[in-house]
Amino acid sequence: MTASLLHISPDAIAASARRVMGRCDELARETSMDGGIERVYLSPEHARVNRLVAEWMREIGMSTRQDAAGNQIGRLGSDPRGATGGDEPALMLGSHLDTVPDAGRFDGMLGVLMAMEVVRLLRVRTDDQWRSALGFALEIIAFWDEEGTRFGTALLGSSAVAGTWKDEWWKLTDADGTTLRQAFLEFGLDPGRVGEAARRPDELIGYLEAHIEQGPELDRRGESLAVVSSIASARRFLLTVEGEARHAGGTPYDMRRDALLGASEGALAVERICRAEHHIIGTVGRFEAFPGGVNIVPGEVQFSLDLRGEFDGERDRVWHSLSGELDEIMGRRGLRWRAREIHSAAAVACAPLLQDVIREGIGTTTATAEDPATIFSRAGHDGMAMGGITDIGMLFLRNPDGISHHPAESVSTGDVAHGIRALAEAVLNLSHARTT
Amino acid sequence: MTASLLHISPDAIAASARRVMGRCDELARETSMDGGIERVYLSPEHARVNRLVAEWMREIGMSTRQDAAGNQIGRLGSDPRGATGGDEPALMLGSHLDTVPDAGRFDGMLGVLMAMEVVRLLRVRTDDQWRSALGFALEIIAFWDEEGTRFGTALLGSSAVAGTWKDEWWKLTDADGTTLRQAFLEFGLDPGRVGEAARRPDELIGYLEAHIEQGPELDRRGESLAVVSSIASARRFLLTVEGEARHAGGTPYDMRRDALLGASEGALAVERICRAEHHIIGTVGRFEAFPGGVNIVPGEVQFSLDLRGEFDGERDRVWHSLSGELDEIMGRRGLRWRAREIHSAAAVACAPLLQDVIREGIGTTTATAEDPATIFSRAGHDGMAMGGITDIGMLFLRNPDGISHHPAESVSTGDVAHGIRALAEAVLNLSHARTT
Repeated sequence: MTASLLHISPDAIAASARRVMGRCDELARETSMDGGIERVYLSPEHARVNRLVAEWMREIGMSTRQDAAGNQIGRLGSDPRGATGGDEPALMLGSHLDTVPDAGRFDGMLGVLMAMEVVRLLRVRTDDQWRSALGFALEIIAFWDEEGTRFGTALLGSSAVAGTWKDEWWKLTDADGTTLRQAFLEFGLDPGRVGEAARRPDELIGYLEAHIEQGPELDRRGESLAVVSSIASARRFLLTVEGEARHAGGTPYDMRRDALLGASEGALAVERICRAEHHIIGTVGRFEAFPGGVNIVPGEVQFSLDLRGEFDGERDRVWHSLSGELDEIMGRRGLRWRAREIHSAAAVACAPLLQDVIREGIGTTTATAEDPATIFSRAGHDGMAMGGITDIGMLFLRNPDGISHHPAESVSTGDVAHGIRALAEAVLNLSHARTT
Repeated sequence: MTASLLHISPDAIAASARRVMGRCDELARETSMDGGIERVYLSPEHARVNRLVAEWMREIGMSTRQDAAGNQIGRLGSDPRGATGGDEPALMLGSHLDTVPDAGRFDGMLGVLMAMEVVRLLRVRTDDQWRSALGFALEIIAFWDEEGTRFGTALLGSSAVAGTWKDEWWKLTDADGTTLRQAFLEFGLDPGRVGEAARRPDELIGYLEAHIEQGPELDRRGESLAVVSSIASARRFLLTVEGEARHAGGTPYDMRRDALLGASEGALAVERICRAEHHIIGTVGRFEAFPGGVNIVPGEVQFSLDLRGEFDGERDRVWHSLSGELDEIMGRRGLRWRAREIHSAAAVACAPLLQDVIREGIGTTTATAEDPATIFSRAGHDGMAMGGITDIGMLFLRNPDGISHHPAESVSTGDVAHGIRALAEAVLNLSHARTT
């Protein structure tokens, strides 16, 4: 084990871990879904959860604000913005508070709540002498709309912070036809001021996030924690297949142009092509047939494609060969198809220094063997957007059976305790590395 | 050409056909759908259209009532129910007023509106001496929920009239979770009295329906009208495929149990198995993936299957072999599947006498060659339910390119004029056949 810089009793860390688990349960109750968890951007649940999290941030001495994109921020120090008056740049810790539909209770929330415990423990450790002890300010950021559940486009909150908000997003609509612009106004945010959420690179030291792995790698290895090397590249498309709606009884097969059968072949082609590759994974998660009558040959299908790979080039080559396959399928069936790209993110590497301090942090725990696992993330994270303005680092926690985006998603209290220690140590290691 | 019994000028019939076309347009405006036609059972549109149609029925001297299941009925004579006081049994003419989603403007409505013109012309012809002239009363019935759009079960209105309403239907729910029972109450109908809609066999002479073909047969032959020999048997199922919802990025293919891929294979199996058969057609019209997030492996898919065949045995054999195929697909993918049968109807033969009088009716027009086409209906019709209590007969009108259940569904004014004459002549022929 690496020598600890934290000097905090295991009991205090265990108490922190239990508080995190209790708060995950508490947040799970803020949902728009009967009998499950769904919390989307700019919803009433968004407002309520921000208020609750802000209260918890103030409880550990942070000043709080909601930024111009609806992200909740806490900061230790007199200047809550941190950008003026010669204040130090900040190390940001965080994750997101929005969820997918019928979600688990840890994806996102865990990283925000663990960050609060890290701040709590570091305050004890440094005896509240922040500036002299660490050499940088600490912020916690709770992003919104990492998942893209409501408007189909992911990383909205972190894109605002990274200054990469796109004007075209204002026209995105949710399932009820509400535009992103209307949703901003209804939430009480001013679309014209979203640029104020952007941070300058010189305001930030880096961004550190703890997150469940959302995959089975750590569980298979029997280890608690891993350093993340990079976040995989992802592209998302909405595909439309157009045929002709016809009466189910009266239309012989030779006169049908059935959009559903074409789209079904398309979904199976995604699986076939991606399975033949390494490090590429494609998923059709949304699939709707129109008009949707039991006795009507579907005239249109809309389906989504989520394509991820460790390397951008590989991912794009797969999309190219899939496009050729779709041309063949739809041509043979007399159908038209088109794709609209709704999300594209290049693979983002975690900064070597941040990987090192996280690795040292893990080394202070009994969570793993001498050499902690280093794995790349197939899942997307806010770090993909934040990587545009600052160094990023990520700590993964074991996710039993790799089940995520599902009510059965879990993490153990013991692993959370290990993770809190590792993350707190990483912050101290980073401070040490910068001052020596 | 067969000798006409009608003695009505072609101009009067052309005027009737134009009135039918104008009223199809007028009914098309009663819709719940922006920019399209959708009119479902027990909706506000249902109430408005019944009032409008009742007004049109009264205009041609009929007494009107809405029955206990929401069907709109018109009758010529003093006793609107026709079941008491020694009144004659009635020949029923009709079709339905509900539609599929994004429907055309003729499927169903055309038959109700043509029936009104037949009554109008026969009143002129018989100089209002109904009973003596025909020997039976005439009723027009406008059924509701032939399509099953709202509750997934078809022929609700005609099943009520045929006395085959099932108590289990009360628990059916629409897309908003409203039960059929609630919908009855909200519409102002008493679920406890639905039995009063049932007619006794001795109240009826038969049921005649005019309908567009919903298939390309007449268009391919270049003929206007056909006699229907039978209505194909149909079974409908809602199938559920269950796997496990997982995170799209973090879950390798070997850990996925993707319900969407299994259901896609299932939809393609329906096509493959049915195409290998004659006179069998299977359609997957509804298909939804849950939870439906872009970045979640679908844990569940619900899809519909509509299976039709000229003969019941053939249709059931295909369902049996499809079930085996689904066992294989889902077993291989670690998925579970189940099917709920939501509709089952045996093939129903049209009565020979009614086929004959319709054939003679067609013969009085210039619509066709000497020997009119006799075809079986792959589409379901209210006659399937009505066949349980009375003789049924159907007249098909040419449906260009066979396009139905689609906004482009059409019929020509000329064919409607031929159809009105053929149907009126059929009624007179029937009267003649019964009295000689």
